[in-house]
Amino acid sequence: MAAPPAIDGDRLLARLDALAAIGAIERGGVCRLALTDADRAGRDLVVSWMSELGLEVVIDAIGNVFGFTSGWRERAPVMTGSHIDTVRTGGRYDGNFGVIAGLEAIAALQRDDAAPPRPLAVAFFTNEEGSRFQPDMLGSLVYAGGLGLDDAKRARASDGPTLGEELERIGYAGDAAPGFCRPHAFVELHIEQGPVLDAEGIRIGAVENLQGISWQEVTVLGQSNHAGTTPMRLRRDAGYVAAAAAMFLHDLAERMGGAQVCTVGRLELFPNYVNVIPARAVFTADLRNTDEAKLREAERALPVFLAEVSGRTSTTVTTRRLARFEPVVFDAGVVALIAETARELGLSTRRMTSGAGHDAQMMARLCPTAMIFVPSVKGISHNPAEHTEPADLLAGADVLLRTMRKLAARG
Amino acid sequence: MAAPPAIDGDRLLARLDALAAIGAIERGGVCRLALTDADRAGRDLVVSWMSELGLEVVIDAIGNVFGFTSGWRERAPVMTGSHIDTVRTGGRYDGNFGVIAGLEAIAALQRDDAAPPRPLAVAFFTNEEGSRFQPDMLGSLVYAGGLGLDDAKRARASDGPTLGEELERIGYAGDAAPGFCRPHAFVELHIEQGPVLDAEGIRIGAVENLQGISWQEVTVLGQSNHAGTTPMRLRRDAGYVAAAAAMFLHDLAERMGGAQVCTVGRLELFPNYVNVIPARAVFTADLRNTDEAKLREAERALPVFLAEVSGRTSTTVTTRRLARFEPVVFDAGVVALIAETARELGLSTRRMTSGAGHDAQMMARLCPTAMIFVPSVKGISHNPAEHTEPADLLAGADVLLRTMRKLAARG
Repeated sequence: MAAPPAIDGDRLLARLDALAAIGAIERGGVCRLALTDADRAGRDLVVSWMSELGLEVVIDAIGNVFGFTSGWRERAPVMTGSHIDTVRTGGRYDGNFGVIAGLEAIAALQRDDAAPPRPLAVAFFTNEEGSRFQPDMLGSLVYAGGLGLDDAKRARASDGPTLGEELERIGYAGDAAPGFCRPHAFVELHIEQGPVLDAEGIRIGAVENLQGISWQEVTVLGQSNHAGTTPMRLRRDAGYVAAAAAMFLHDLAERMGGAQVCTVGRLELFPNYVNVIPARAVFTADLRNTDEAKLREAERALPVFLAEVSGRTSTTVTTRRLARFEPVVFDAGVVALIAETARELGLSTRRMTSGAGHDAQMMARLCPTAMIFVPSVKGISHNPAEHTEPADLLAGADVLLRTMRKLAARG
Repeated sequence: MAAPPAIDGDRLLARLDALAAIGAIERGGVCRLALTDADRAGRDLVVSWMSELGLEVVIDAIGNVFGFTSGWRERAPVMTGSHIDTVRTGGRYDGNFGVIAGLEAIAALQRDDAAPPRPLAVAFFTNEEGSRFQPDMLGSLVYAGGLGLDDAKRARASDGPTLGEELERIGYAGDAAPGFCRPHAFVELHIEQGPVLDAEGIRIGAVENLQGISWQEVTVLGQSNHAGTTPMRLRRDAGYVAAAAAMFLHDLAERMGGAQVCTVGRLELFPNYVNVIPARAVFTADLRNTDEAKLREAERALPVFLAEVSGRTSTTVTTRRLARFEPVVFDAGVVALIAETARELGLSTRRMTSGAGHDAQMMARLCPTAMIFVPSVKGISHNPAEHTEPADLLAGADVLLRTMRKLAARG
């Protein structure tokens, strides 16, 4: 098979700029929260690019948008895609890059004389970030059947309206039933949002799995008292319990080893005065593992510890689940194809785990799926300073193009 | 010696109400920050009560106000007093009670046919709370020679002006040199601001010492990173160091035993997100002991621990001293006199330690000094809900009156 025409790198970079101009904030960042006026403007622009390529645009009832080449109703397409919503102080690459590179990959394959037989598709999914509506990855989750349409439409924005109302308002409540098209394969190209590729100087990550994620919020109730007049044995120190739990989780992750990580990223004391024993502490536990059984082991260990220490300190502990995703293992064949394609292009590559959640983890429920990562400089993401070098953007788009071509050529 | 005339309880309670009306806030609380217009109005009212009693009012250069009976220039007076400034959301008893009860004690002794030979004085000291100017107990500290007048006047309010400017503005920059009068003895009557008397059902505390207090603010700098993609061994987790230090201090206090207490009352993480390893943690260490050598032992242990854990986690730690007071031991004779007087009145009493700082600890540098505590319901203080039962207020004032009478009768 001859090499396909190359990605139009200039247009890819120009389109990244054009999309980043919608909802632009200081220092090159972007604020385009899901289903806001800015998101509508971004959607309209991407839809115009889909139409320019002659793609058939289909919108489903949760606002996911798909651009198909002809023949997709007869034969399952090879699909790529990501999202174009951002966090409140986001960068310009997260999500957007995968959608725009997908458009360019399809454009290059349209110029391809030896175009493979399968139809192609590029999609962007609603509310991946979860900054305005909960949960995150909502559009792809509904598409994959993991959340009912009506439930999803009832999700309420932090600023008031429901997701269903906002979909109607911006004109993106489509007719297609979520899940209407089961792809032949799905490949998502994304910036890493982590430090691994940048630190190791590797150009392409072939993502073989995603960590399972368990988020809990723990509230400890003790009793506020004077730091001078209350003997240690009479204290009901909520801050002490939180500190002990943070230590425990850190040590647990080190003891378990392997892929287990535990983070206490948020911790607040009340009333938070130098000379007052904390009456209340609220902290989060972020537990992750690529192995579901080990993740459950870590989840089970926390309440056992909390029961022991709260009993000892006469405090009470309540726990609220904030998020839970099982680990996802991507399709070994697609992962191998990505790695092989990178090597053919002379690009350094490694197998890796994604520490962040992505739409691809939902699509993996429907078809063989994997992801391509390109480096994030210093691992910075969800930040206006998010940056990926143009050469890496083009390399990633090239790997996507060639991977899609191979997938479309197969059976 | 016959019993002195009784305290005028009705007037004492009415004056507490009248003073609490100046700077009144919701739920019966008071906001009368040092050297504000409200403080000036409160000062003017108390000075008018001093004048009503025929006391000679003397104001010193740091704004401390004294009311003397005649003869104080010839013979060292028995002095009582406290402060009338409050915290931002304060109660009506803290400080104010000791000043108003002191006025009533002197009024009762003026009605005393067998009045003892020594002159008497009642004082209120500037900026005891430290809510508007640092340090706290500033007026009595300057009076006792622990802080230079010029340095103190340069202290800047959280809202802008210097203490010197505010003293001039409200007309309380007096002529007398701080320390101009060394009392024969000093007795301060105060609410306990802690739970001990209330919990034990004891009416009068004879305060024999004050804890030494060491306040430090510790800042840990690590590196913010993604909670999913950063392996445990590569983390520089500032929150972990803070949690480990909080645990260490708690365990240190339990290990040292005795009067040692350690509190981490304030702890803040940055950026404080569930899925971001904390880049920075700031926490306070409040260490107290009645024994200076043991307090120093605790102070020395903290940096040793922090050096070990910061080395192990590639974080950096800086420490800033917020406050430091050595333990104060009050005069055994005055303490015994207070306890004996309470027993004579049929009031239950106990020797105790003050966990909070008071003007009396500064005056103890100048003359034999001790304190009388009355119960605080549930130990609540620095709060509009601060409350002491009227019967306890009168009992405390009665013990003050009789203790001052005995001190004035002696040699």
